[in-house]
Amino acid sequence: MRLFKKVAIIGTGLIGGSLSLAIKKKGIAAQVVGVSRRKESLAEAKKIGAIDDGSRGLGIIKGADLVVFATPVEAIIKLAPRIRRIISPDSIVIDVGSTKEKIVSCLGKIFTNYVGTHPLAGSEKSGIINARQDIFKGSLCILTPTGKTAPAALKKINLFWRTLETKTIILSPQTHDKILAFTSHLPHIIAFSLIASVPDKYLKVSSTGLRDTTRLAASSSEIWEQILLSNKKHIIDSIRVFQKNLSAIALGIQKNNKKALSAILMLARKKRDTLSAT
Amino acid sequence: MRLFKKVAIIGTGLIGGSLSLAIKKKGIAAQVVGVSRRKESLAEAKKIGAIDDGSRGLGIIKGADLVVFATPVEAIIKLAPRIRRIISPDSIVIDVGSTKEKIVSCLGKIFTNYVGTHPLAGSEKSGIINARQDIFKGSLCILTPTGKTAPAALKKINLFWRTLETKTIILSPQTHDKILAFTSHLPHIIAFSLIASVPDKYLKVSSTGLRDTTRLAASSSEIWEQILLSNKKHIIDSIRVFQKNLSAIALGIQKNNKKALSAILMLARKKRDTLSAT
Repeated sequence: MRLFKKVAIIGTGLIGGSLSLAIKKKGIAAQVVGVSRRKESLAEAKKIGAIDDGSRGLGIIKGADLVVFATPVEAIIKLAPRIRRIISPDSIVIDVGSTKEKIVSCLGKIFTNYVGTHPLAGSEKSGIINARQDIFKGSLCILTPTGKTAPAALKKINLFWRTLETKTIILSPQTHDKILAFTSHLPHIIAFSLIASVPDKYLKVSSTGLRDTTRLAASSSEIWEQILLSNKKHIIDSIRVFQKNLSAIALGIQKNNKKALSAILMLARKKRDTLSAT
Repeated sequence: MRLFKKVAIIGTGLIGGSLSLAIKKKGIAAQVVGVSRRKESLAEAKKIGAIDDGSRGLGIIKGADLVVFATPVEAIIKLAPRIRRIISPDSIVIDVGSTKEKIVSCLGKIFTNYVGTHPLAGSEKSGIINARQDIFKGSLCILTPTGKTAPAALKKINLFWRTLETKTIILSPQTHDKILAFTSHLPHIIAFSLIASVPDKYLKVSSTGLRDTTRLAASSSEIWEQILLSNKKHIIDSIRVFQKNLSAIALGIQKNNKKALSAILMLARKKRDTLSAT
């Protein structure tokens, strides 16, 4: 379904590139252009048919009626004022960033038709080389409008994500960041901490358990450093809750307290079983 | 290759059942019998052709020239003296337990031809219902002989596991437990702690990241409570190292220390990349 004339993707990495492919595949826009600081990324995006045209300069986005920020957090904040001067005030602007309070507060002031979004798609992999048009299919996309969000823009962006076959839900930026601190940022931190804790020479005496539990640690450090620093308070809260549970297990082991240990393990299993099947 | 006349599997769960299937498939024994406290488990094991015969009583193992302990740790310790009275002193005895110091010390005193083994196979699933004959193929099996282990028994058990297509390595029980504390027991504890930390109502706002990082939390609490309590010291050490790394990340976030945060994240990624591909 044709929803836009010209879509500009700022950042043609894993998410930006996959989104471009999906937009092309669904016929959502007549034209898709990409901006990246890396020539090779643009060349690859063009080669796989994700974008019609690409450039390292922002001029190419002129005339876009949808602009999608798909760069790390800091680049979103930095590029926004420059992009504002190039596009029409009527253009709809979204971002796909993993934290929302900071980005929504910043972009909401700059663009008239801005809607914060966060598709829970992607993986520990990064770069256009790993882009696939089907990563959004069946996934959850969180929309984070505020009291100032234009209703028409919200409605159109909701339709946009549903056309890409994501389920959409609406959360405030604050609630989004609070929840994602536990369900995404904390798991990343745990994966980083866990693999960092295993002595190098022990690594090969391991199996799928360590591999899966630390998969997220293969994520881009540049992207994740910025995500973590843009959701400080909620992340620190989530780490505290985690530390409490870890200490409870450690104490159960130390004191040989079978009953306490068993209770935590059974609760954990019950909660894990409510997540969709592996 | 025929290596044994009669193999007795004590505990026809995921590992015991899979092992029975693999033994049958490879023609390693003329006869395989199973012992389980659950009638249903024995019935299923017989139905899928994992065992020729099964019983809730130990009498059935009489005449076995290989006995395999595949029950949780406590049952191994408890059943060993009773089994000693039933089998010939010449019989080879192994266990497939996840910790070795305690089990090896106990069984080494009871059986003349005992060899501790730990195949790094299996998953968070449990029970005969999840048994598959190919779970050992390509995996790593750790053999933990001591100064008292009979060389002929060790040689034969090494051949046994290699016939099942595992790679085998030899470690002392102490080294095994120290390493596995980091590469298996800690990841389980982390997975339990992580899922326990996520508020129930947040669980559905999550994706594959949380699911994979907590996969191990779906493990049997009965089995894991016993594993954790049988490797206390090394596990507590591993938790301390983990807590240090987690605190370093938390501090980096709190202090906005990009350089420190980036260093940890990059180290983590580098280490994770040395694990075999996901």
